[in-house]
Amino acid sequence: MLELPVPTHRKTEFVEITGLVQRAVSESGVSDGLCFIYCPHTTAGLTINENADPSVAHDILTALDALAPQNRGWTHAEGNAPAHIKATLVGNSLQVAIEGGRLRLGTWQGIFLCEFDGPRHRKIWLKIT
Amino acid sequence: MLELPVPTHRKTEFVEITGLVQRAVSESGVSDGLCFIYCPHTTAGLTINENADPSVAHDILTALDALAPQNRGWTHAEGNAPAHIKATLVGNSLQVAIEGGRLRLGTWQGIFLCEFDGPRHRKIWLKIT
Amino acid sequence: MLELPVPTHRKTEFVEITGLVQRAVSESGVSDGLCFIYCPHTTAGLTINENADPSVAHDILTALDALAPQNRGWTHAEGNAPAHIKATLVGNSLQVAIEGGRLRLGTWQGIFLCEFDGPRHRKIWLKIT
Repeated sequence: MLELPVPTHRKTEFVEITGLVQRAVSESGVSDGLCFIYCPHTTAGLTINENADPSVAHDILTALDALAPQNRGWTHAEGNAPAHIKATLVGNSLQVAIEGGRLRLGTWQGIFLCEFDGPRHRKIWLKIT
Repeated sequence: MLELPVPTHRKTEFVEITGLVQRAVSESGVSDGLCFIYCPHTTAGLTINENADPSVAHDILTALDALAPQNRGWTHAEGNAPAHIKATLVGNSLQVAIEGGRLRLGTWQGIFLCEFDGPRHRKIWLKIT
Repeated sequence: MLELPVPTHRKTEFVEITGLVQRAVSESGVSDGLCFIYCPHTTAGLTINENADPSVAHDILTALDALAPQNRGWTHAEGNAPAHIKATLVGNSLQVAIEGGRLRLGTWQGIFLCEFDGPRHRKIWLKIT
């Protein structure tokens, strides 16, 4: 399994990792298969959504903040309960097909690491089969 | 990878695709493996839930509307921010095991394309391994 | 495919199944691959999140209760509409890499069956490749 670093710079943000994952796929030499992308963190997640207009990511983060606001008497003592809740709602792994050595994504799709408790030095794990 | 059309007829709806996916599995001749189902759109998703009573899908759509209501000052200018938010909450891919040439689903489970910004001509991509 | 029983004891709870899944992986003899974990139920789900502090699971359940409260005029007549809604939000399958015969999880990650309409005799299905 391949481990790739993904630095984040804000408390919450979507970091597009499509290019990073594509480079790893290209270097693997696999032309037809599946790329499994895994987030080993419990306060970050992975999603596929529109990468053309950054306002989409902004609105998703706004909606998640409303679902899991910072102050609602959470019991988890570390103060980052909302980040854990968002991680479960978004999910921590993805799978994308590979065809002709390229990730087969929809026209408007990009792959994002969703930071919910940053900034941090995050990692993603890739398994290309 | 196989591409199958899924027409939708409403602004938001669950379209059951279990039969469509099963036919593709049967035609593939694969008797034991995994079926990877991928939605290449950013305003639709995929989920597995009850297919016996359509009120289940109705209630899920109602809950998603409450989480991402149409008018909440979203920044995405195309007016379909709620659809993008719902797509990330529901997810855009699934995996189901194949045994004896059949999708191995739970007793009450069906596979649904979740339309959040229809009606549209949607597609799903299948990879059967 | 392997079927493993997971008894639950409350209306809603997270039951950690990391050890159960690891034992099945060990018995399979697979040292390098992927473990696909599937929940065949429509009122339960699967997630990966922190397993060190049980308050994390508690807070996620609290947040899901707020998103899908018991009484909101749901149309599904069986009274468990919230459980179906939560199942779609959390998702019903996971995938984890196997390396050296061990599930490759992040430092703080555990695998949980999310019971949303218990107590019940639940099952998970595993496919180890």
